[in-house]
Amino acid sequence: MISQFIEKQDFMGTPSELYAPIDYTMSQKGKRMRPTLALLSCEMLGGDIQECLTPAVAAEIFHNFTLIHDDIMDEAPLRRGLETVYHKWNSNIALLSGDTMLIKAFQYAMNTDKAYSLEVLSELCKVALEVCEGQQYDLNFETRDDVTLDEYIEMIRLKTAVLLGSVLKIGAIVAGAGEADKKAVYDFGIDLGIAFQLQDDLFDCYGDVKVFGKMPGGDIADNKKTYLYLKALELASADDKKLLEGYFTMPKGRDDKKQQAVLDIFAKYDVRRIVTDIMTKYYENSLKHLDKIGVPEEKKAVLRNYADYLYNRVK
Amino acid sequence: MISQFIEKQDFMGTPSELYAPIDYTMSQKGKRMRPTLALLSCEMLGGDIQECLTPAVAAEIFHNFTLIHDDIMDEAPLRRGLETVYHKWNSNIALLSGDTMLIKAFQYAMNTDKAYSLEVLSELCKVALEVCEGQQYDLNFETRDDVTLDEYIEMIRLKTAVLLGSVLKIGAIVAGAGEADKKAVYDFGIDLGIAFQLQDDLFDCYGDVKVFGKMPGGDIADNKKTYLYLKALELASADDKKLLEGYFTMPKGRDDKKQQAVLDIFAKYDVRRIVTDIMTKYYENSLKHLDKIGVPEEKKAVLRNYADYLYNRVK
Repeated sequence: MISQFIEKQDFMGTPSELYAPIDYTMSQKGKRMRPTLALLSCEMLGGDIQECLTPAVAAEIFHNFTLIHDDIMDEAPLRRGLETVYHKWNSNIALLSGDTMLIKAFQYAMNTDKAYSLEVLSELCKVALEVCEGQQYDLNFETRDDVTLDEYIEMIRLKTAVLLGSVLKIGAIVAGAGEADKKAVYDFGIDLGIAFQLQDDLFDCYGDVKVFGKMPGGDIADNKKTYLYLKALELASADDKKLLEGYFTMPKGRDDKKQQAVLDIFAKYDVRRIVTDIMTKYYENSLKHLDKIGVPEEKKAVLRNYADYLYNRVK
Repeated sequence: MISQFIEKQDFMGTPSELYAPIDYTMSQKGKRMRPTLALLSCEMLGGDIQECLTPAVAAEIFHNFTLIHDDIMDEAPLRRGLETVYHKWNSNIALLSGDTMLIKAFQYAMNTDKAYSLEVLSELCKVALEVCEGQQYDLNFETRDDVTLDEYIEMIRLKTAVLLGSVLKIGAIVAGAGEADKKAVYDFGIDLGIAFQLQDDLFDCYGDVKVFGKMPGGDIADNKKTYLYLKALELASADDKKLLEGYFTMPKGRDDKKQQAVLDIFAKYDVRRIVTDIMTKYYENSLKHLDKIGVPEEKKAVLRNYADYLYNRVK
């Protein structure tokens, strides 16, 4: 339903240099996780999911805007196995078509029933600022050597989790839900989002190339201070800590010897299991928020199943 | 009043790396032309200018967002005699703090009376897309050698004039004006904006360094296809056209010999006078739109005076 709705949209316009990258990005098949969560939340709370399509797609456009701008900052050539806008066109076009998508996201969010359009917009503005803050923390962490585990969680909360919380809340707003239910689905999204990002970090490190479609170890190659790395630093002996920090100040780029050495240190301190446990904890906590929602249990199954699907995903 | 209102705003937040560039940009003293036009339009049409401050400042934040992103694309070190965000920090910070300002602009536009907040937002979305389109045309023109005079006018209409039209319309919306008056102030802004941009092109070429604060000839150094250049191409003999095109394919950068040669060709075809006449025509046309507005002539004096001030400005 979401894919059909997105396919029906006309993202082209003039000048074509500005709009072709938007059409290119929006026509890529992804999980459409954000609009899906919005619709499931709306349905669970008794709303009309048809009405929720436009604000749900606003969030999807917003999410894709962040990817286009992030790819400029990371100078990333590939995403979803396809060329990034930054690489296929250039950084100026990625900058400007990204801006255009951000504006389009607000335009979609606005084109909803007047009864709640301002509340939807207000939520989108709030979360959009937080996502920018999260990205800035992520950039700051690149040059800091004293990032704490709590700071990392706060960064992924802002960069990834709040948008999941907000789309669930937007679904609740469209359904006309009360404040307590809005808060509960939001909190569900926050914990689910943190679990999702920790899982992404685990996949990046230990994912199966045949399933995942890309070689594991990208974060290690990029010296990315993920939860795995920060946890290893916390647990490692002084010597291993020094070794690990040494590897993470090497020039970026794949290096089999470095990757194996880092994975060895991770293994020595059982970091994979520890992070998996923490991820599972966030996943389990997310489900507890669903308990607070004032609809029959069977109505909650859609969100439980979706969380379960994410938890058991292999890519 | 606008300056006081802007000074009272708190643009800081965490992480400071994200918000300091916004505070830096918004605290710079400019003409504040966009919020001024919004307030004057609102006042002329009998509205409460206090109510218009927030949407007027939304437009000012939006305008400053466009400058920050344009400066990345132009790799510009200076603006208003001060370091650009791009140069003072870096392009990633300029990209992300610019995004944050665009979101802030929508947040300000939203925080207005519910009676018209959606109409204000809708206008801001529409004009924001057009400004992006204008910027993309401007980028496209850099690598095209067949830009027409009409295309140039359409580019500056989108890049500069529509925002002036929209702030005037937003003032009218806040004042509760009728559709005809909204259209008239918008059209006034379009013609005034085109006149303003043509005047800027003239200043860039012929401005007094002592008054203007910067050496004239920046556009010539940058091979910028301004109206002056395009008009000269239209009028020049085949030989002079070839000469002029040759100069505008030289590597960018100041070159006294090139500048003098280009100015000589402009002078030979009386381009300065011709463009000044066209600029004056747009200015005069802008005033004609004021005639259609349904308020007593003396109420229109504020906008006439402001247009007159812009027309007679020396920088």
